Amino acid sequence: MSTSVPPAYHHGDLRHALVEAGLELLASGGAESLGLREVARAVGVSASAPYRHFENRQALLAAIAREGFLRFDAVLRAAGEGIAPAQRLQTIGRAYIGFAFDNPQLFRLMFSPEVSKDANPALMEAARLAYQSLTNLAAAEGLPGRETAVSTWALVHGLSVLLLDDQIRLGGIEDREALIGRVLGQFVAGLRALAAH
Amino acid sequence: MSTSVPPAYHHGDLRHALVEAGLELLASGGAESLGLREVARAVGVSASAPYRHFENRQALLAAIAREGFLRFDAVLRAAGEGIAPAQRLQTIGRAYIGFAFDNPQLFRLMFSPEVSKDANPALMEAARLAYQSLTNLAAAEGLPGRETAVSTWALVHGLSVLLLDDQIRLGGIEDREALIGRVLGQFVAGLRALAAH
Repeated sequence: MSTSVPPAYHHGDLRHALVEAGLELLASGGAESLGLREVARAVGVSASAPYRHFENRQALLAAIAREGFLRFDAVLRAAGEGIAPAQRLQTIGRAYIGFAFDNPQLFRLMFSPEVSKDANPALMEAARLAYQSLTNLAAAEGLPGRETAVSTWALVHGLSVLLLDDQIRLGGIEDREALIGRVLGQFVAGLRALAAH
Repeated sequence: MSTSVPPAYHHGDLRHALVEAGLELLASGGAESLGLREVARAVGVSASAPYRHFENRQALLAAIAREGFLRFDAVLRAAGEGIAPAQRLQTIGRAYIGFAFDNPQLFRLMFSPEVSKDANPALMEAARLAYQSLTNLAAAEGLPGRETAVSTWALVHGLSVLLLDDQIRLGGIEDREALIGRVLGQFVAGLRALAAH
């Protein structure tokens, strides 16, 4: 090996380490502060090393967003486990909004139009997995599938975004949790009343 | 007047002209390309002239967002006029999403946490006016006011954002309009079934 080649990364998986470093940088500084140079520095490799795994900054962001969707999917699935079907939609809806609050920068990146799902099939697939949790919930309500899944998604996504961006006037976190509970409760009750109609 | 003072703006209202220029720059280039220097150039005044009206870039953005909420409010009100109460929520919901599609950059700016409503009372007031249309609709449904207003808002806002950001897989604009109609239709039917329960 020529001395001009940077030393091989001595941990098992440089790509994985770079994505992990990206997740940390994203959480602490937002997407603007995140680039191939920055993750290379965080992991302790040369500035050119990330190019072995990511063609450009977009590819790195897509890999981070994909990891976000995999974690999101795990959170949504875990939230529904052992919960009675009647409570599942509210519980998973809360988990959706909770993930957005726990990971605001990651959540924004995951749904940013700047990280194209069409251009990144692995990202698209991870997003589809997470969306499947909502589709399953919708199917369980016995109403037309697509509109029930999209309305559930739009409701919890809209609540997440409006609350994250501080657009809904609240009297503190307690009020926020109570409002989320009442809004989801009413939405589910409306679906059930409609299904029973 | 000393010759070092730039000539007075010869149209009636420089502030108004700057906000109008800002709205055009925003629509064509996004918020990143928008600053006091750029609106001054667009209007044909010196780079220092906008400072007579706006302390900084933030104040200009807040004035543009305020104008956005005034237009948004006018669009929502006009959409509801002459519409039977039973159809009003769907019609205004469509108008909300339609405004987002017709003015994507302005819509994003209006709901951006970077333009603080708390720090800009005139902006807050304009946003409240627009929100009032949704509150009135919610009150007309005969269900608990706050959750009905917030869930209606979250649903149409969530749909706007997910569609604008290209997160919902669609087969074209026709499919988009049909999906919006079905989602809003089911939501309203759910509210009505619940109110009749």
